[in-house]
Amino acid sequence: MANANTNYLELQGGYLFSEIARRVAEYKAQNPGAELIRMGIGDVTRPLPPAILSAMHKAVDEMGAENTFRGYAPDRGYDFLIDAIRENDYTARGIDIAPDEIFVSDGAKCDVGNIQEIFDVGARVAVTDPVYPVYVDTNVMAGRSGKFDPQQGRYSQITYLPCNAENGFVPPLPGQKLDMIYLCLPNNPTGTTLTLSQLAPWVEYAKKNGAVLLFDSAYEAYISQSDVPHSIYEVPGAKDVAVEFRSFSKTAGFTGLRAAYTVVPKAVRLLAAGKEVSANELWSRRHATKFNGVSYVTQRAAEAVYSQEGKKQVREIIAYYMENARILTKSLREIGLEVFGGVNAPYIWFKTPTDSWSFFDRLLNERQVVSTPGAGFGKSGEGYIRLTAFSSRENTLRAVERIGKMEL
Amino acid sequence: MANANTNYLELQGGYLFSEIARRVAEYKAQNPGAELIRMGIGDVTRPLPPAILSAMHKAVDEMGAENTFRGYAPDRGYDFLIDAIRENDYTARGIDIAPDEIFVSDGAKCDVGNIQEIFDVGARVAVTDPVYPVYVDTNVMAGRSGKFDPQQGRYSQITYLPCNAENGFVPPLPGQKLDMIYLCLPNNPTGTTLTLSQLAPWVEYAKKNGAVLLFDSAYEAYISQSDVPHSIYEVPGAKDVAVEFRSFSKTAGFTGLRAAYTVVPKAVRLLAAGKEVSANELWSRRHATKFNGVSYVTQRAAEAVYSQEGKKQVREIIAYYMENARILTKSLREIGLEVFGGVNAPYIWFKTPTDSWSFFDRLLNERQVVSTPGAGFGKSGEGYIRLTAFSSRENTLRAVERIGKMEL
Repeated sequence: MANANTNYLELQGGYLFSEIARRVAEYKAQNPGAELIRMGIGDVTRPLPPAILSAMHKAVDEMGAENTFRGYAPDRGYDFLIDAIRENDYTARGIDIAPDEIFVSDGAKCDVGNIQEIFDVGARVAVTDPVYPVYVDTNVMAGRSGKFDPQQGRYSQITYLPCNAENGFVPPLPGQKLDMIYLCLPNNPTGTTLTLSQLAPWVEYAKKNGAVLLFDSAYEAYISQSDVPHSIYEVPGAKDVAVEFRSFSKTAGFTGLRAAYTVVPKAVRLLAAGKEVSANELWSRRHATKFNGVSYVTQRAAEAVYSQEGKKQVREIIAYYMENARILTKSLREIGLEVFGGVNAPYIWFKTPTDSWSFFDRLLNERQVVSTPGAGFGKSGEGYIRLTAFSSRENTLRAVERIGKMEL
Repeated sequence: MANANTNYLELQGGYLFSEIARRVAEYKAQNPGAELIRMGIGDVTRPLPPAILSAMHKAVDEMGAENTFRGYAPDRGYDFLIDAIRENDYTARGIDIAPDEIFVSDGAKCDVGNIQEIFDVGARVAVTDPVYPVYVDTNVMAGRSGKFDPQQGRYSQITYLPCNAENGFVPPLPGQKLDMIYLCLPNNPTGTTLTLSQLAPWVEYAKKNGAVLLFDSAYEAYISQSDVPHSIYEVPGAKDVAVEFRSFSKTAGFTGLRAAYTVVPKAVRLLAAGKEVSANELWSRRHATKFNGVSYVTQRAAEAVYSQEGKKQVREIIAYYMENARILTKSLREIGLEVFGGVNAPYIWFKTPTDSWSFFDRLLNERQVVSTPGAGFGKSGEGYIRLTAFSSRENTLRAVERIGKMEL
């Protein structure tokens, strides 16, 4: 019998959201009449706005005519989209990114999951804790994690940088030399972020220690405060040490359409058998070999996000979600909970009076609200719950009414 | 500086099609007026048929309305598509595949590239030669290939099973124990295939030796002869040892839309630390962790391929391409070339009077026809050229006229 990749044996339980789904299904089986309000999974709910829809209809028509039909897309993305990304997300902020430093893909989850492939299997990984599980699990699968310690709830060879109310959600700089550091800002799950001056030391650390920062900014569009950077490249020197992941999923409601992009600057270097290689070159080779481009229809939809109408319509949707965030925050505070996030991100992160999963169960059983237990994101998430602002206004208000009656 | 995955250093040169693009660009720079006919890359050219277009327009409209908007798709694909796949591609042929053995993805290239991740890094790999480069390159990246021997044009730890005119394009069964065997049938690049009775010994070999067959049937829709199996599961017992990859790319012109699926039967077992694990379970975990579903619009498009109208329209397009194949074959034979393929696949594979790249250059420089040199697919492809039947009828006829005047 052929041998399996035994690293998979080190993966812990199911994916967090599978466990949530299991408990929800169990509750529904016992309470078939219950009307659940789902604020667990960070998935958008507002329909796509008109500018995007009309770009998609046009693209579909093009696929139906001989002279406008498109086959394989360039694996890095069409120029029309790469140009729009550069101009709007970078040049407009005074950041110079070359077209061949941008890689359009079908999702930030895929890219943050795949980026580890270009690193050595012995590379030392750090994540902030709580953490988006994909950063950890993909490194477990690759064999970088070491053994899982059930006592600690952590892998032996991964460095966890706690991020909680005690340190103001500013993770401490690592005390040792590390190779790959995942930063998600604005953060999923905490909804918190770092200011430009809080982020700068990370770039400095990376330069000094030869680390690469893997900067996931999938929630960038939700930033409302002026001292919070939208791109890590706003920090001088970051182009030498940082890879940036962006997504259209939360920015423009693309979770069901699939489009994202990753910036791999040519100045980011790795060491291969004693020689410097460009991370861009390695990623480029991976992308061309294991990926075959994003749907033309989706790429035209993404381009429309940057049109004048598209920008306006997308901003309105973000404002809608952020009003939900404001409503949730206000109401949770009124019943005495300590609430974080919700200002620069569509996530509300609050301290629970009991442990995470117990409070998750209370919200489900007593209030019929589905949340995400913070403990599911790691040890430092214990004692917190995440709620998303992605529901409809109506459901957000209903949830607030239900939770508002809770006695803690 | 962080260490890179040094396996990437073992990759040979650029991807085949980059080298072709380079030579074509050079020729065009020197001959700006030349009208090239491109029969190199296996990309479709016919527009999407009406049944697919209308399904896509409808899906786009759904994404624009609050009550029909869809966020994240199930990572394995929507039930409506999985049901259509099961019913049409399997149940209709008397094959029983469970819904959770099917994984919808954004491309067969991605899936055949990623499947190696669930195997041990020491697993022994075999490919037929000539070979679709992705099978080899993804194993090089994972560290399974050993060193490249430039003399041999082969990697030391990969087993190459020659497939050429001498053995009637029937690869020999391996003499040793192997773990992962890639079979592409109908074959890219040779356009040849195996009959059911020629395929059966492979299943027997795999059972006896504990190997897994990785069966890429992206060109299944082009099969015209009744003794050629459409699925490896037509061979009794194959569900215990074979993973099957299918794609909508060539079947229905989806190269620019991105949809495929992979069947991983639960009966396919691997050995992990002394225990049997199901390949389905491992792949399921990989899929959920590193992938986030296929565009809803694309999945509705794929579903429409199985509608009554869709089937009829797709068959007409395939017939169009296969008439091109017939025209090419006939004409190449008339000038004395030995031609293979083109009956159950949209590829024409012919013996060249000189080496592959020289004849590629002659076709480009003398006839302004872009082909693919067989040597680019491996050592046993030397002395052959691949032409695709995916051009328009007009271009196929023009190509035939140009090549028909060649003196060999």
